[in-house]
Amino acid sequence: MTYDDIIAARGRLAGQALVTPMLSAPQIDALAGRRVLVKAECLQRTGSFKFRGAWNRISALSQAERGRGVVASSSGNHAQGIALSCQMMGVEAIIVMPADAPKAKVEATRNYGAELHFYDRATEDRDAVSQALAEERGAVLVPPFDDPFVIAGQGTCGLEIAVQAREQGVEHGTVLTCCGGGGLSSGIALALERDAPGLTVRPVEPEGFDDFVRSLAAGERLACEPGGISVQDAILTPMPGRLTFPIGQRLFGSGLAVSDGEALRAMGLAWQWLKIVLEPGGATALAAALFQGEALDDGPVIVTASGGNVDPAIFADALETVQAPARN
Amino acid sequence: MTYDDIIAARGRLAGQALVTPMLSAPQIDALAGRRVLVKAECLQRTGSFKFRGAWNRISALSQAERGRGVVASSSGNHAQGIALSCQMMGVEAIIVMPADAPKAKVEATRNYGAELHFYDRATEDRDAVSQALAEERGAVLVPPFDDPFVIAGQGTCGLEIAVQAREQGVEHGTVLTCCGGGGLSSGIALALERDAPGLTVRPVEPEGFDDFVRSLAAGERLACEPGGISVQDAILTPMPGRLTFPIGQRLFGSGLAVSDGEALRAMGLAWQWLKIVLEPGGATALAAALFQGEALDDGPVIVTASGGNVDPAIFADALETVQAPARN
Repeated sequence: MTYDDIIAARGRLAGQALVTPMLSAPQIDALAGRRVLVKAECLQRTGSFKFRGAWNRISALSQAERGRGVVASSSGNHAQGIALSCQMMGVEAIIVMPADAPKAKVEATRNYGAELHFYDRATEDRDAVSQALAEERGAVLVPPFDDPFVIAGQGTCGLEIAVQAREQGVEHGTVLTCCGGGGLSSGIALALERDAPGLTVRPVEPEGFDDFVRSLAAGERLACEPGGISVQDAILTPMPGRLTFPIGQRLFGSGLAVSDGEALRAMGLAWQWLKIVLEPGGATALAAALFQGEALDDGPVIVTASGGNVDPAIFADALETVQAPARN
Repeated sequence: MTYDDIIAARGRLAGQALVTPMLSAPQIDALAGRRVLVKAECLQRTGSFKFRGAWNRISALSQAERGRGVVASSSGNHAQGIALSCQMMGVEAIIVMPADAPKAKVEATRNYGAELHFYDRATEDRDAVSQALAEERGAVLVPPFDDPFVIAGQGTCGLEIAVQAREQGVEHGTVLTCCGGGGLSSGIALALERDAPGLTVRPVEPEGFDDFVRSLAAGERLACEPGGISVQDAILTPMPGRLTFPIGQRLFGSGLAVSDGEALRAMGLAWQWLKIVLEPGGATALAAALFQGEALDDGPVIVTASGGNVDPAIFADALETVQAPARN
């Protein structure tokens, strides 16, 4: 798992993934009290960065492996990345999803031609379900984050951040990343270590799902308390990955955690000033930049706006946080 | 007003305007029954393509002209482009806006430091108000579309379309443009004439404001019936421009008109599958691609998604058009 794996991933993704834009708005800067650059991964194919890692993993399968099909477990964004990648390459995809996954994600994943398999988040273990299904079907299991190809694919986002930050004159600063299992965060950190060593990744998690925050502080992988709930569904992982955590230990600054209310307000501000659609778990890093500035070093901040797959009702909640101006 | 003016504009805009991405989604293609590429100008600075023409016009002013300040009339997108450009270059901006302009646009324009001057759309003539104000203040009047620098600035969007379409293998097809006074449409057409002659611009207007549609058919500039209303506020101009119309006559295919309902549904689908925020008048071209396919030649379509400055309440109406999937 090195920088060269990310360069190889970039080659596989060329012409398939979008080079997403780096957005900014003076109103966001004013609210944050600093310069904020927003890497708009919600515009990536399938509406999240997950397409990067999924395409890299599927396109690196052997012909024999492709013939066996793929099993992946996901609350929805990895699912869509895998489903579209498989559809494009003619590989059968079976997706293991929690029964309470957002309807928009379920529908989109089905739309990309995947077979869906639901499990109960409260009583069943996702990894055990996926493992059993992969064995039963003779299919290849593709983990959502703890896989070298997946991490390398997400790392291509970091290569782009390095170039785009330099174009905007940002050589030193903080990169806030929406963080679940750490695939995106660790991939970006590996890319920046070589290409933009003045930029430091700090992972941002939902309150109550701050396993990376606490694990980094403790120096060992700690799990979340079970039973938590959050609207930031994309990044509700119980524990840092076996591959992602050591990368984080070596390269990350300390982590941050944001509330659901902060994430919804960040969605509203991204709608208002950046014209992008974020899901709650895709607005986590922007929320930290906007509402937790006191915990950040001085200087510019780059945030990943990592996904935009959200149900209309949740988005309507975010819209309600946007203050309607009182008068003309 | 030639291709070379657009190249000069590109030089002025380099590093200031965003090269906006060309987006697509298989779900949009399936709904339209053809390949659809979406030029996401809502992601441009100030939330619409208008920043291009505004920056080009203001940055080409002499020092003496800059000292006099600028008057511009606009329902909001040109206003924001002018206001931000002036703010960045230290030029005073006075914006003439209809009293019923969307609050989001009014607030943003004020936010960019402009002085606002309201008029009554029913009883006052916008051009007369602007002209009088410019004379009274000794300021330079910057028209919203009928100006060579403004058209050339908007034309830089066409230069990008030519490159991005070719990257995606599209050499022949239709370019549907959201059309008010025709600044964007004519600028794009001039750029494509040289850079992508296989792409034909067809302007798309709101029903009831189809002055370009009818003028192109009649071979002369015709005005709209007064008194119409539409939620597509950005492109409610009464008549094709004196500069833009001859360009359109020479280069445009026939025009199209879409209903407010179609525009709102297109906003909902852009939210759902492209993760971009469109205003009604920025979704006009996408609406034609989605709902008026029978009026289009076979082959791929490129649409301008020209702006995203919209009040939350209108956006909520668009969200309601998104069908919530019934079940997991």
